[in-house]
Amino acid sequence: MSKLYFRYAAMNAGKTTSLLQVAHNYQERGMRVLICKPATDTKAGDQLSSRIGLAKKVDVLIHPDDSLDALIPETGVDCLLVDEAQFLSPKQVDQLRHIAVKWNVPVICYGIRTDFLMKWFPWSTRLLEIAHSIEELKTICRCGKKAVCNMRLINGEPVFQGDQGAIDGEVEYESVCGRCFLEERVW
Amino acid sequence: MSKLYFRYAAMNAGKTTSLLQVAHNYQERGMRVLICKPATDTKAGDQLSSRIGLAKKVDVLIHPDDSLDALIPETGVDCLLVDEAQFLSPKQVDQLRHIAVKWNVPVICYGIRTDFLMKWFPWSTRLLEIAHSIEELKTICRCGKKAVCNMRLINGEPVFQGDQGAIDGEVEYESVCGRCFLEERVW
Amino acid sequence: MSKLYFRYAAMNAGKTTSLLQVAHNYQERGMRVLICKPATDTKAGDQLSSRIGLAKKVDVLIHPDDSLDALIPETGVDCLLVDEAQFLSPKQVDQLRHIAVKWNVPVICYGIRTDFLMKWFPWSTRLLEIAHSIEELKTICRCGKKAVCNMRLINGEPVFQGDQGAIDGEVEYESVCGRCFLEERVW
Amino acid sequence: MSKLYFRYAAMNAGKTTSLLQVAHNYQERGMRVLICKPATDTKAGDQLSSRIGLAKKVDVLIHPDDSLDALIPETGVDCLLVDEAQFLSPKQVDQLRHIAVKWNVPVICYGIRTDFLMKWFPWSTRLLEIAHSIEELKTICRCGKKAVCNMRLINGEPVFQGDQGAIDGEVEYESVCGRCFLEERVW
Repeated sequence: MSKLYFRYAAMNAGKTTSLLQVAHNYQERGMRVLICKPATDTKAGDQLSSRIGLAKKVDVLIHPDDSLDALIPETGVDCLLVDEAQFLSPKQVDQLRHIAVKWNVPVICYGIRTDFLMKWFPWSTRLLEIAHSIEELKTICRCGKKAVCNMRLINGEPVFQGDQGAIDGEVEYESVCGRCFLEERVW
Repeated sequence: MSKLYFRYAAMNAGKTTSLLQVAHNYQERGMRVLICKPATDTKAGDQLSSRIGLAKKVDVLIHPDDSLDALIPETGVDCLLVDEAQFLSPKQVDQLRHIAVKWNVPVICYGIRTDFLMKWFPWSTRLLEIAHSIEELKTICRCGKKAVCNMRLINGEPVFQGDQGAIDGEVEYESVCGRCFLEERVW
Repeated sequence: MSKLYFRYAAMNAGKTTSLLQVAHNYQERGMRVLICKPATDTKAGDQLSSRIGLAKKVDVLIHPDDSLDALIPETGVDCLLVDEAQFLSPKQVDQLRHIAVKWNVPVICYGIRTDFLMKWFPWSTRLLEIAHSIEELKTICRCGKKAVCNMRLINGEPVFQGDQGAIDGEVEYESVCGRCFLEERVW
Repeated sequence: MSKLYFRYAAMNAGKTTSLLQVAHNYQERGMRVLICKPATDTKAGDQLSSRIGLAKKVDVLIHPDDSLDALIPETGVDCLLVDEAQFLSPKQVDQLRHIAVKWNVPVICYGIRTDFLMKWFPWSTRLLEIAHSIEELKTICRCGKKAVCNMRLINGEPVFQGDQGAIDGEVEYESVCGRCFLEERVW
């Protein structure tokens, strides 16, 4: 039996770099990986690209109503990697868990936990509930402490209203610790 | 700034023992802890009791509509400990996080993630979303692997229907790994 | 293949309680554990006793020249538990690793890393080098931070000379963080 | 007080990539890092280069007799990063710990634990003994399990004799799990 892993982090921690390193490690040993991304994340199209300068084409774009049950029998891989996993549906997360348990293929999902208001993504919660292993990738706040909140910036200023899913255009994010988030906004 | 910790485990892993050890460590150093439990958990009344034979009186029973904002100013403690934290309301979890961040008191919550059907507790999900640190206490399945599922037994037989919250009487739980759970029930 | 685990902590963190909980978890599932302790640790004789009030008889006292190779074939156990593992010889640590890898029996060792001068125990270093999994049990310093140093006290006063192995009589230990240790002694 | 971190891994796990990502995260927030490497590691000269294609110039080459005490006062950095830390002297490790504790600068060291015979590096042991936090970067064995041993290859064949420090020329390394290592060589 393999495991379903959820490696979560605040934004801009290096999740995609970590995913690409895992893919590299498998491929260097002559093993095969399947790299997936929810199509909901339109950033960079069918590419994974990390801020540090690495990029790679995605093997499978996952649409909201796709079933993942057939993913492994069709392809025969040693490891399944999913970026931006907070956009998976709960049903898809259950299917990924099934792949790990029944077909003995490790599934490693990378994603964030909450949005810019510290509200949940309906999707990533399922990963937190049923992953066999929950691991944190750490990054730092402006103050040097560990960042846990994704603060939204427009023109460099923190904003606390708007849609959950805004990922493009003028919207930026800064990962901050709980205290720095609190100082910008009492909730 | 202190942290909100969520230490989760399958049932019967030793969560209460771990909580009582932390309390002991603080008290041995002359520091004060406040031990809380949701009143929803009626098992053992106002006591925490661990299967290995340790017991201690709970300081505060938390009712579903209680506000936890006043907890620390009233009492002045070095650490706040919460057992059976899956029965907290999401609002109470946010209040605990506030205590850790604003008043600099570490808050350590112990609880389970999902019920006997691997469905979420509406309550514990909030802890997984916003805890500063998520840590797992491990225990073993009948097969020797790490247990992650709480399988419900009645008269020693696995059952897959019934209320989420049944914790008494004829109902027992066995912590099992994903594969042993799957072998008992295809879902 | 099973793993050799090293669960280290500063003194008085609850290592023995944790070991006894693991033993309890196995036995509750009808599985067998073998509890070992180096005979070098004469505290409490052939008992494990934890400060919180739990106690249990040791199955095997390990002497410095004992070979552990025959341990499992003789006994047939599901898990091997070793307390005070900093007193094992490096050769014995290699034998424990062999047990985990070859005979598929998890071996869980509990111990400390360094002595009251932050010098190594010749023995525990081998565990840090080759354990398949290194895990920390945390406890707190007098200041509330994580403790990592074992400060020796005589009559309540820190002392920074003497034998490494003093564990009895007038000698006590306080687990402190790096800064509090530094404030007591510039090194 | 900041911490001394030791992030260890088998060879070829992505240690340098991880270090460069941390450097990137700090710099992206306008903070300064100091990247160090023992001069003993002559691979790639004064560059850090990761197998996945990232590279960066080292700020400070550390020679075996260098004192690191003056490192921070001279430079004023937010984080000190050390690659190939298994080549530091024990004294240098103590100095790094002092930097973290006294000057409040996090020090993150990356390195391996043992050589191709599972013998220790005299140097890295000190990191395992006194780091405030020990973290593992995982990679996989040819069999899909976690790799923990650094097996030496010459012309693609495992070898079990030779100098500890050979890092160049015809010598290659394959990271393998304990069982695959054992199958190649009974020890």
